[in-house]
Amino acid sequence: MVIRDKIFNTITQVFKRHGAVTIDTPVFELKEILAGKYGEDSKLIYDLADQGGELCSLRYDLTVPFARWLAMHSDVQAIKRYHIAKVYRRDQPAMTKGRMREFYQCDFDIAGAYDAMLPDAEILRITSEIFEALGWAGRYTIKINHRKILDGIFGVCGVPADKLRAISSAVDKLDKSPWDEVRREMTEDKGLDPAVADKIGAFVVRKGGPDLLASLQADATLAGNDAAVKGCADMALLFEYLDTFGVLDKISFDLSLARGLDYYTGVIYEVVTEGSAPPASKGGETPGVRKGEKKANGGKKAALGPDDDRSADPSVGVGSVAAGGRYDELVGMFSGKANVPCVGISFGVDRIFSITKARMEAEAGGAAAVRLNEVDVYVMAFGGKGFTGLLKERMQVARALWDGGIKAEFSWKQKPKLPQQFKAAEAGGVPYAVILGDDELADGKVRLKRLGLPEGHPEKDGVLVPRDGLLGEVRGRLKALEEEEEARRREDLERKLESLGVRS
Amino acid sequence: MVIRDKIFNTITQVFKRHGAVTIDTPVFELKEILAGKYGEDSKLIYDLADQGGELCSLRYDLTVPFARWLAMHSDVQAIKRYHIAKVYRRDQPAMTKGRMREFYQCDFDIAGAYDAMLPDAEILRITSEIFEALGWAGRYTIKINHRKILDGIFGVCGVPADKLRAISSAVDKLDKSPWDEVRREMTEDKGLDPAVADKIGAFVVRKGGPDLLASLQADATLAGNDAAVKGCADMALLFEYLDTFGVLDKISFDLSLARGLDYYTGVIYEVVTEGSAPPASKGGETPGVRKGEKKANGGKKAALGPDDDRSADPSVGVGSVAAGGRYDELVGMFSGKANVPCVGISFGVDRIFSITKARMEAEAGGAAAVRLNEVDVYVMAFGGKGFTGLLKERMQVARALWDGGIKAEFSWKQKPKLPQQFKAAEAGGVPYAVILGDDELADGKVRLKRLGLPEGHPEKDGVLVPRDGLLGEVRGRLKALEEEEEARRREDLERKLESLGVRS
Repeated sequence: MVIRDKIFNTITQVFKRHGAVTIDTPVFELKEILAGKYGEDSKLIYDLADQGGELCSLRYDLTVPFARWLAMHSDVQAIKRYHIAKVYRRDQPAMTKGRMREFYQCDFDIAGAYDAMLPDAEILRITSEIFEALGWAGRYTIKINHRKILDGIFGVCGVPADKLRAISSAVDKLDKSPWDEVRREMTEDKGLDPAVADKIGAFVVRKGGPDLLASLQADATLAGNDAAVKGCADMALLFEYLDTFGVLDKISFDLSLARGLDYYTGVIYEVVTEGSAPPASKGGETPGVRKGEKKANGGKKAALGPDDDRSADPSVGVGSVAAGGRYDELVGMFSGKANVPCVGISFGVDRIFSITKARMEAEAGGAAAVRLNEVDVYVMAFGGKGFTGLLKERMQVARALWDGGIKAEFSWKQKPKLPQQFKAAEAGGVPYAVILGDDELADGKVRLKRLGLPEGHPEKDGVLVPRDGLLGEVRGRLKALEEEEEARRREDLERKLESLGVRS
Repeated sequence: MVIRDKIFNTITQVFKRHGAVTIDTPVFELKEILAGKYGEDSKLIYDLADQGGELCSLRYDLTVPFARWLAMHSDVQAIKRYHIAKVYRRDQPAMTKGRMREFYQCDFDIAGAYDAMLPDAEILRITSEIFEALGWAGRYTIKINHRKILDGIFGVCGVPADKLRAISSAVDKLDKSPWDEVRREMTEDKGLDPAVADKIGAFVVRKGGPDLLASLQADATLAGNDAAVKGCADMALLFEYLDTFGVLDKISFDLSLARGLDYYTGVIYEVVTEGSAPPASKGGETPGVRKGEKKANGGKKAALGPDDDRSADPSVGVGSVAAGGRYDELVGMFSGKANVPCVGISFGVDRIFSITKARMEAEAGGAAAVRLNEVDVYVMAFGGKGFTGLLKERMQVARALWDGGIKAEFSWKQKPKLPQQFKAAEAGGVPYAVILGDDELADGKVRLKRLGLPEGHPEKDGVLVPRDGLLGEVRGRLKALEEEEEARRREDLERKLESLGVRS
């Protein structure tokens, strides 16, 4: 929970930096709201018992409740909202190797009619800020594509209209299957003309950036397709904005990205990290799909859910860590009338958590050196014969620290032994001890000691501080400690960037 | 959600200042875990449908899941934990006038065997820190009592053992019914000897502090009762510790406080605010009872749940805003063997929220002046004929602010009109605007303007700032703004304390 909280705080700070507010939707919705939104995965919805009230189900994701909320609040025509909350999927634990039935999703969405690609660009900027703030610089890629470009490609290649979804779904498997296998599925399983499949193949293996866009725009066949032209115009604008926002170098324009869910109407994206793709031999499981998404004919289950199927490399097989896209027509499904255009992203907090924890452990060379609490000062006492425990004095010092906003603890024993007090402080990773003794107190002083200093350090035994100057001294030292840690983090980051050939 | 988030943050900060960690328990538990823990209120438990898995129910409070967690984790013999989460009660909305079925509880508990009354005192100190931090100084009282003292009183007055619970429950109604009514219930409904009832009456109407304790300790009849002697010794220690912690003046030792739940074994407490008690004529509804608590023969429902039954006075009828006590034997109910002594408190966040919001509105003289987001700077552009919208420049300035950690927004229109941009900034309560214009940009400058300044203010039109010095200027001004607000809050508080006759 300590690491998880830090991740939540980091993400929330970025959301707020971009003016987002949070709204809360109930953990259960009327059963009919969720029904028919998740295709064959609907069987994973948890229903409440019929106890004589309305029939309700636990939410399966955060997008459908948000769209339902927008449809109900027709006065809200524009909102930037984030929501961090749990969702529920009735996966059979035995079948899914520890995949949890309750897990966090963290969604950010922009609803409202704005000039093209501006909210979309800001979402990708936010995404980049989040992974940078999590310390993932140089270790993630944002794959993007556009539904209209895909539709255009399928159109000019000659895919019949009734096969569009099935072919799109086959293409989406290119992140884990080689082209030959995807081609076989298209032609043998789905009856596509092999010549059409080969034309598609020539397109969808292409990745790049503005260069790829330029070559698509120069393609004479695509130039005659309205959807492709519109999609390319969007992408051109998006690239321009991403360049201005300084995130173009994190982007991979990837024509194989298709995403399963039907409701996307524009740009689509997912974030992958080192080794995100599971081994090609595995197949069958598509990780990291935006909330509620289903494959037309895949066996995929809990999107963005935790996945215990990890190898020793912390990120292998973890799948995408965030995904989303533009969905301009979902609100209309609930309102029955007006649509509110939306674009959003869902962060797989549990996956991000697993990777972050594993990396911390790998970098610490074993168990993660994670502080269990955030206490800064442990107030302790020691004395020889006739030791009273100095309980009242410890309470007074703790009180003065609390009054000054300092996080402090002391032993809840009348006469605690000194080694027990040190042990408690060290178990919590507390950086400072204030040690009270009769002689020092008689002099109006207390001893302030940095814990864990090496032998021979000049302050190994701590320093004597006037009791009434303790708060100021503690504050000064904690501030210095924080700056020290900040500097170390910065150095670490610079070293990593250098090793990746990036100059800050 | 903005106010609610601030309340959560305030509370969490205090918890962390005392070394607490958070643990998370699932939103549903096995049905059998919850069964039989809530007496007649068990009918309010939400069950999940039997969809071929285990039978589960949504959690009704946070205490039973915590005790279950402790029983399962026998390696954890001591923990300070907090948990802010939603609980679920299947109240009939029509019956309960808008009482919600899903609401927040915020619990803090200390588990572990420690020297007497030290964790108990720290919980009350934490409680006091929280209400002070929420700006409630002088407006709340912590009522405390001790189960053993109550048992001792009932014993020496001659209550038969089989009537103990029923009489205790009648006493608990003294917060909303006059003594005559409670006496009638004891004698007529519960068959207590009127002479015994009168003896009880002489005790339970008493309130005070260490003076009341001294008079109980001087009482010759109580001195012969083991439970009373033990309870008084605890209270003496507690008062000493509370004095050291500086919270004794917030305490009212109140012999009428009984609390319904059977599992309390020591000190019990609840926090009331101005007008907490509903009008005596109303009765029937006991607000603010610690999680899961039930009255032996009351009609009470969702404890600490939101209550829409409020009058114009923001806090009238809202009931207690926090409540708890020591429960040393609950973990043993789940472990079947070892007990882990526990003491805890549950904050009624929804009630605290309602009161805070109503007070903010009353003090603002109408609608609460609550910022909807936390954006600090709105980046806008203006120009005359041939105005391009300066979109790229707005994006660049926003990016530089974001890079510096500043919360900033700009219009997602290519060519937004100036009044629309001001309107958007003002709607969000954004304090600063950065205004871009062609001439200023050509000079390498931007205009920084504090929004909402009165006519005639020397900086009404903003100040010109070099573009590359903008981040520093914005940081400096935001820091000054924060200090200004902090000073105003401090002055407000001092004025209030003075009006209450308190000197800081």
